[in-house]
Amino acid sequence: MLAQGVGRCLLPPCSRPARSSRGLCSAAAADAVDRVRALLQLCADRHYICPGESNAEMFRRGWSCGYGPLGVELRRNLLQQWWHSVSGSRARVFAVDTLSSSVERGAGGARVVGSELFQRILGQPELSGERLAQELKRLLLSAPSLRPSLLQGALEQFVPSLEMVNKKLPFGLAEAGLCFQPSDGSGCLAEVTQTSLVWFCSPRTSSQWLDHWARHRLKWWRKFALSPSDFSSVEVPEHELEENTSRGMKILYNFPWGLESLETLWCRGDAELLQAYKGVRSKLQSRDGRKSIPHVVSVSGNMDRGVIAFLSNSLQQLRREDSKKRLQHRKVLKIHPVLAPVKVALDTGKGATMELRQVCEGLLQEFLEARISAWPGYLDTLPTSLEHLNAKYDEMGVLFTVVIGENTLESGLLQVRSRDTTIKETMHISEIRNFVFKYISAAEKF
Amino acid sequence: MLAQGVGRCLLPPCSRPARSSRGLCSAAAADAVDRVRALLQLCADRHYICPGESNAEMFRRGWSCGYGPLGVELRRNLLQQWWHSVSGSRARVFAVDTLSSSVERGAGGARVVGSELFQRILGQPELSGERLAQELKRLLLSAPSLRPSLLQGALEQFVPSLEMVNKKLPFGLAEAGLCFQPSDGSGCLAEVTQTSLVWFCSPRTSSQWLDHWARHRLKWWRKFALSPSDFSSVEVPEHELEENTSRGMKILYNFPWGLESLETLWCRGDAELLQAYKGVRSKLQSRDGRKSIPHVVSVSGNMDRGVIAFLSNSLQQLRREDSKKRLQHRKVLKIHPVLAPVKVALDTGKGATMELRQVCEGLLQEFLEARISAWPGYLDTLPTSLEHLNAKYDEMGVLFTVVIGENTLESGLLQVRSRDTTIKETMHISEIRNFVFKYISAAEKF
Repeated sequence: MLAQGVGRCLLPPCSRPARSSRGLCSAAAADAVDRVRALLQLCADRHYICPGESNAEMFRRGWSCGYGPLGVELRRNLLQQWWHSVSGSRARVFAVDTLSSSVERGAGGARVVGSELFQRILGQPELSGERLAQELKRLLLSAPSLRPSLLQGALEQFVPSLEMVNKKLPFGLAEAGLCFQPSDGSGCLAEVTQTSLVWFCSPRTSSQWLDHWARHRLKWWRKFALSPSDFSSVEVPEHELEENTSRGMKILYNFPWGLESLETLWCRGDAELLQAYKGVRSKLQSRDGRKSIPHVVSVSGNMDRGVIAFLSNSLQQLRREDSKKRLQHRKVLKIHPVLAPVKVALDTGKGATMELRQVCEGLLQEFLEARISAWPGYLDTLPTSLEHLNAKYDEMGVLFTVVIGENTLESGLLQVRSRDTTIKETMHISEIRNFVFKYISAAEKF
Repeated sequence: MLAQGVGRCLLPPCSRPARSSRGLCSAAAADAVDRVRALLQLCADRHYICPGESNAEMFRRGWSCGYGPLGVELRRNLLQQWWHSVSGSRARVFAVDTLSSSVERGAGGARVVGSELFQRILGQPELSGERLAQELKRLLLSAPSLRPSLLQGALEQFVPSLEMVNKKLPFGLAEAGLCFQPSDGSGCLAEVTQTSLVWFCSPRTSSQWLDHWARHRLKWWRKFALSPSDFSSVEVPEHELEENTSRGMKILYNFPWGLESLETLWCRGDAELLQAYKGVRSKLQSRDGRKSIPHVVSVSGNMDRGVIAFLSNSLQQLRREDSKKRLQHRKVLKIHPVLAPVKVALDTGKGATMELRQVCEGLLQEFLEARISAWPGYLDTLPTSLEHLNAKYDEMGVLFTVVIGENTLESGLLQVRSRDTTIKETMHISEIRNFVFKYISAAEKF
C-alpha cells in the first residue's frame, strides 16, 4: 500500500477509464469511475466523511480517515454489531484491550519517538557527526513500536485468560482498536480500525474452526447487505500463505474498483504462541489430557473498509421522470436499518415556527432517550422544498422523515415518510417512537 | 508525568506510609496504601486488568493499560454513557472522528517513524558521520506526530461543521479516542482514552457555557457514584491557566493517594481556531450578525482514569462475623448497575450436570440477545462452595447471581441473589430476563 498517491489521484490505475479502443471494457471502467466519484462525493456532502480529496482517498483505501457525524455513527453501529455477533454468540469469547504501543514487540512497524527526547539530542552542541548519528540510531532502535495488528496483544493475554477458563479449550479473545501500518515512501501512516478474534483450540480442530468462523463471518457481512452477493469468501491459495500459517480464508467485497479483503482468517499453528512465551511449553498447556500446545485461528477485520463497503453496497442510483417529464436522478443510501446512522429526521412544515420547533425538540428528546438516533432537521432554517428535503435525507440514508406541521398542533397527527418505500403515512405523535423502535428491532432479528 | 517509576514502585511518594512519628497521619497513609493495594489486586484477580505490576501501575496512573474482559466492558459502558450524555442531551452536538497522527500538526508530542524507512537509511554504507546524522535528523523532523489530545482535530473540523449547522452558533463536536502523551526519560508512551467536547459559541457567552458544562459534567460523574462527594469540581487558579485560556475548571476525584483530575474544561478564546485556519477570519464567521470569531470551550476527559475512579469509588470492604464467630472480610464492588460490566452470572447447583448446563446455555443466550451482559459461571467446573461463589461475584461487581438447580428442571424455579442486598429470591425462569432488564432500566433513569 503506497501512500504516495494520496491527494493526487482519486482512483487507482486499475479503475481509470482505459484509453484503448476496447470499447465495452472502457465504458465499464468509465462507469465504475463515475460510481466511485458519486459515492465519495455523496459521503462528503452528507457528513459521512470530512471534505477534502486526500481524506476521500484515505477513505477509499479502507484506512481510517476524518469522519463526519454520520460516518462515526455508522462505524460505531458496525463495531457494536461485530461485538455482539462475536462475543455474544458464544459463551467462550472474552473481550480484551491491549496497548497500541510496546517496547518489547520491537521488530517491525512504526517507531514512536518523543519529540523532547530527540530535540534534546539535537540540541547538544558537543554531539556532531559520528556521535550524533550513533545517538539518533540508538534512540530509534530502542523506541517503542506501534502495533500493526491486534494479534500480538491477544497472544500475550493467552496465559491469564487460560487461567480464567480453567485451562479448558476452545476459547477466544476479542478486541477492536486502532492499528498502524506505515506506508513506504512518503512516511505517511495508515491507521486502520481493526477487529480481531483470536481463537485458541486443540490442534486437530483448528481447520474446522477456520471453516466455522469463515462461514460465521460471511453470514454476518451479508446480513446487513443490500446485495449480499457482493460479499464473498475465498480460500487463500497455498503459495500466498503467510509465514507460520497453514491455511487462510478471506472475506472479500466487490468494490467498483475490484475485490478487496474485509476480513482475513488464518490457521496459525502454535509457533507464534510459543514465541510469545519464549518457548515455555508448560505455561501453555490446556487441560485436555494431552501435552499439546493450543493452535491459534485468527480472524481480523478492517472496519474502516467495512464502512465504505456498506456505503458502496447500499447506494442506489435511480432514474425516473418527474411530473413534468424531466429526468430525475434519485440517489438513495439504502443502509440496513440496524446500521443506518440516522433513524429519524425531524422537520417542520408550514405553521407557527416557535410552537412547531418546541414539538420537535420534545420529540427529539424522546427519541434520544430511547437510544434512537435522530437528526434535528428543524434547526435548518433555510427554506427548502419537501422534495429537496426528501432527496437530502435519502442521500443520508435516513430511515424515516417526520414532518410536524400545523395539523400536529391541532390533532397530534404527523407525516412519516419511509426511505425505502417513499410512502407517506399519517400517524399520531404518541405512536411514532414505538413505530420506529419496532421497525429497527424487527430488522435486527431478521 | 514520569514513566520511570513504572514497574518499580507501586505507589507515588505521597501515598507511601510516612516513617515519621506523626502517628495519625502515618496510620492514615498506611491505610491508604492498603486500600490501593487491595483495589489493584482485586482488579487483576477479577479480570478488570491484566496481571502484572507494571500494568497495574499504568492503570493507577490513569493511563490505558492491558484490560481484561470486565475492564473492557466497564470502559465501554462508561464511554457509551458519555456519548449519550454529551451528544444526546443537546441537539447541537455532533460526533466527529479524526486521525490520531498528522504530518501537519508538527510541533510537539511523539513522532512516528516507519521502521523500513530508517532501516533503509541506516543500511546505506556510504552514509556515515555528519551525513547520516543529517539524514536521521531530517527523517525525525518530517515524521508525522501522534495527537496528545483531541482538540486540534476538532478545530480542523470547525469549518465543514459550521456549514452543516447553517453557520449558527452554538454547537459542539464530540469525539472519543486514544491520545498519546510521551513521558520523558524512559521513552515510554502513555496512552490515554480521551473524551472531548469542543463547544463553539459567541465570545460573550463562553464563560457561561464553561459553567454550564462544568455543572453538567460533575452531575454526570456523580450520577454513577456510590459516594458522590468523592467527585468535585474546582476553578483553576489564575496562575495555573494554560496558554490561550482565560478560565478553567476541573472535575476531580479523591483517590486514596490524593486528588486527580478526571476532566478539564477551558475557555480557550479564538486564538487556536484562528491559528488552525491561518488567520482567515472570513471562513470562521457565524451568522449572528456580528463579525466576531466564535470562542472555544473545551471539555476533555480521561476515561481510563474514569474507570479506576469508579472502581475505587465502588469498592466496599466490610467486616463481619460469620455463624462460627470468625471475622470475615467481605469485599464488594458496588458499581452502578448501568456501568457494571457483568449484570448476571449463571451457575449450576447440585444435580444432573448435562441438563443443568443446557438450561444455563439457553438462558445465557436469552440474556445476550437482550444485550444484558452475562457471565457463564457454569463453565467453571471446579467444585466451589456457594459462599465462595458469592464472594467471587461480589468482587467482580456482578449485580445478580442466578443458580439453576435440580429444582429448576422440575418446577422452572431458580435462585437469584442480589449483590447489593445479599438477599436470595426464588423466581420462575421465564421472569428472570425481564426482572434484570427492568432493574437496569430503572437505575438508568434514576
